[in-house]
Amino acid sequence: MGQKRNSLNCIGIVGLGLIGGSIGLDLQTLGIKVHGLVNRSSTAKQAQERGLAQVISTDPAILLDCDLIILALPLEQLLTPSNALVQALPQSAVITDVGSVKAPILKVWRKLHKRFVGSHPMAGTTDAGVEAGRLELFKQRPWVATPEINTNEEALETVHQLSLALGSQWITTKAEMHDQAVALISHLPMLISAALIKTLGNEGDPLVLSLAKKLASSGFADTTRIGGGNPSLGTSMLAHNTSAILQALNSYQGCLEQFETAMLSKHWNQIQKELEKNQALRPEFVAKNLNY
Amino acid sequence: MGQKRNSLNCIGIVGLGLIGGSIGLDLQTLGIKVHGLVNRSSTAKQAQERGLAQVISTDPAILLDCDLIILALPLEQLLTPSNALVQALPQSAVITDVGSVKAPILKVWRKLHKRFVGSHPMAGTTDAGVEAGRLELFKQRPWVATPEINTNEEALETVHQLSLALGSQWITTKAEMHDQAVALISHLPMLISAALIKTLGNEGDPLVLSLAKKLASSGFADTTRIGGGNPSLGTSMLAHNTSAILQALNSYQGCLEQFETAMLSKHWNQIQKELEKNQALRPEFVAKNLNY
Repeated sequence: MGQKRNSLNCIGIVGLGLIGGSIGLDLQTLGIKVHGLVNRSSTAKQAQERGLAQVISTDPAILLDCDLIILALPLEQLLTPSNALVQALPQSAVITDVGSVKAPILKVWRKLHKRFVGSHPMAGTTDAGVEAGRLELFKQRPWVATPEINTNEEALETVHQLSLALGSQWITTKAEMHDQAVALISHLPMLISAALIKTLGNEGDPLVLSLAKKLASSGFADTTRIGGGNPSLGTSMLAHNTSAILQALNSYQGCLEQFETAMLSKHWNQIQKELEKNQALRPEFVAKNLNY
Repeated sequence: MGQKRNSLNCIGIVGLGLIGGSIGLDLQTLGIKVHGLVNRSSTAKQAQERGLAQVISTDPAILLDCDLIILALPLEQLLTPSNALVQALPQSAVITDVGSVKAPILKVWRKLHKRFVGSHPMAGTTDAGVEAGRLELFKQRPWVATPEINTNEEALETVHQLSLALGSQWITTKAEMHDQAVALISHLPMLISAALIKTLGNEGDPLVLSLAKKLASSGFADTTRIGGGNPSLGTSMLAHNTSAILQALNSYQGCLEQFETAMLSKHWNQIQKELEKNQALRPEFVAKNLNY
């Protein structure tokens, strides 16, 4: 971490799942000392075998010597953190998280620690658990931080240096702006994809359903991928970014109704133009990465 | 084509785009003579260079000696075929099509030719045009035929043998059943995916939109893939399978509203259960092909 390395002798990671474990692997490659805190001794053993941190324990005291602590926990645990965890965080350390919604997290954490910085590394989440962590997960992916007026400048710069060390693209924005953007590009897509699978589940004609199963192809697979994913993660998104998602859903329902009205009125030229606009717009969201 | 080969000395293909061109390449590999009819001489030249058929022409007379003729045309041209084409089809030949809706095609073609068989090979459509055809496009993909009471049995068996020769999985069903199933697994997904892109296009806050573009990732890419595809193909689906799609859309809107109501009521357990049902149901549609 260049000139900043001296200020980061030891980084603590709370939770060694996909995100926490991947951070642990990368930081060790960079020669940084990593302490990992986990809930269960069975997890500690697995994490040790995978080498996700140099020192791994279920005892929060392990965080005592850390300069920077990354809370890589599920949203629920970030929003209602245990007293044991909060009390184990040194006042001098910088604290950050990796949660996918930011306003509710700040509401809790700005009171709990004066060197807290909200952040959200935008990296893949198809795998989960202590076996999921892998090297270079964050490389060339956005790392969003959501500083507030009272956020400590030095703490923010520490998290910035962390993101650069992991190869991420640093972005700062307001928490509310982040939550609206991810509602549109991540949470709403999950919801509309889920409703599509549910529609098939609701099909009343067993012959149509059976034929649909035989004929479904890559288009159906793509459109339903995130709606058929991890149910707890999906529920957690909907439960903790509710108002931004409901607003996005409302706008989406309006768009569906416009297509419906155009179909009922046989306005095929209008539909053609809408689809042409779509074809032109989509690359502005996905063309930046050739894998998409 | 095994014992049936003698009855198929020459197969005619009308249109040498992705579907027609791919059929032409495979049939030649099997040692069958292929005549290709195209609209423009420039296309004929390109198709000749790619070897999509042995004989390629813009003159419908080329179909005169064919035992089986495959109409591999866009839906619009299938639904309002030119007189020149209809008159060039030998009465003794078996005629089939490859259109993605079947009831409207049968309505037109059952009057035009007594040995017509409606069919729909379910193969990829991301590429288009005379450069798109490739070998083995239909291998292990469903080939749906939609015979009616008056469909000629021998003609149906000829199309069956064609599908087997191309390595497809033969499925027969009623045209209306086919159109309902593809509305659910292909046309509705395109529509809901298109409405998602439109929702982003409608976002009024330029800062949120700009951030959304930076943060969009594989989930957004997957969910918008078919809604950002070929506008003419999308419009054509909506225009020619309208009633089945509107019915599917109605059911879909109901599912979205159920999620919305559950969110407003904070019924997170109910949502979690719905998402668990989705996760269990999706593989019944997509697990048959390991590439999905």
